[in-house]
Amino acid sequence: MTSHIHHMPRASTKEQIVTAAVETLHRKGFNATSVEDITNAAKVPKGSFYNHFKSKEDLAVEALDRYWQNMQTSLGLLSDEKTPPVARLKRHFRQLGKVAREGGYRAGCMIGNMSTEMPEQSRPVRERLTVLLVAWSCAIESCIKEAQADGSIRRDIDARTVSGFLLNSWEGAVMRSKVDRGAGSFAAFEDVVFTVLAL
Amino acid sequence: MTSHIHHMPRASTKEQIVTAAVETLHRKGFNATSVEDITNAAKVPKGSFYNHFKSKEDLAVEALDRYWQNMQTSLGLLSDEKTPPVARLKRHFRQLGKVAREGGYRAGCMIGNMSTEMPEQSRPVRERLTVLLVAWSCAIESCIKEAQADGSIRRDIDARTVSGFLLNSWEGAVMRSKVDRGAGSFAAFEDVVFTVLAL
Repeated sequence: MTSHIHHMPRASTKEQIVTAAVETLHRKGFNATSVEDITNAAKVPKGSFYNHFKSKEDLAVEALDRYWQNMQTSLGLLSDEKTPPVARLKRHFRQLGKVAREGGYRAGCMIGNMSTEMPEQSRPVRERLTVLLVAWSCAIESCIKEAQADGSIRRDIDARTVSGFLLNSWEGAVMRSKVDRGAGSFAAFEDVVFTVLAL
Repeated sequence: MTSHIHHMPRASTKEQIVTAAVETLHRKGFNATSVEDITNAAKVPKGSFYNHFKSKEDLAVEALDRYWQNMQTSLGLLSDEKTPPVARLKRHFRQLGKVAREGGYRAGCMIGNMSTEMPEQSRPVRERLTVLLVAWSCAIESCIKEAQADGSIRRDIDARTVSGFLLNSWEGAVMRSKVDRGAGSFAAFEDVVFTVLAL
């Protein structure tokens, strides 16, 4: 039995650290989290950290990538071709709002949190944020373009401009939901955006 | 001459600390700033801090109030009755964008920064943020209502809802300007908002 247990697949130390970092850095932010907070949460020895990461900053970049992977369910809704593009946009933001609600509006969006906290402090984090924000914005833009083509969204504003605006506005709504501990800003976002964009 | 100099009004230690805190907390955030960082910036002895403030958290609330006072030039533009309401809104956001540009887009908005970083960590900061955000939103709402009354802004969305949305969207644009180190998000905000709200 013991040897059987030894053969069970086990998360690597590095994987345990990344998983713990996504949760801890998302919830507490970069500067309020120590390496020891992360290794404690990961239940690994503090000394093992530097076998896998050069620095907390290095880990933060990896944690952002993992957060992005974890967002794929929400992001996938934007490219679900069985659904009309406006409905896809609504579902995308509703799904993100649902995740925020389930977390009691306490953590916000890790990408938004890092965008506020880190650009001046870390160039690698800032550069990774740019990549993720551009990718997210492009996914929104595909929906906007389809919706403009099928006549469900107004065509008098450039699709790329609207997409960047929607993403930033969503991040602002998430920021506000942390202060309010409620979904009022999400409701206002959906109400205003889908009223004013309708053709 | 010397006695003359002695009679010149001189900033109190407390005032020096608050002034330094607004700058330091705004630029670096709460958790990346130590009490010593603030007393160093204020050029006062570290020991003097606790004569004036119970904690860094206590000072953060006071720094937010001072930041709000410093915003009065931008906020005053919203109630300038010589200017049509839509132009007032534009001037308000342009003025805030100008301040951000002058700072190289590095610091963002202190209210937005604290809204992202602090709600889970500090109840007094979160409560002060609520007060300031509601006051700001109300000032925007007055313009929106006037603009709806004079027919320059569409009337099919509730003024309070639009105002909250605009404020949150602005904060999202500021967040993005830190990552981009540029004004693209401000341009998108102005372009989209004033196109879609026009009657």
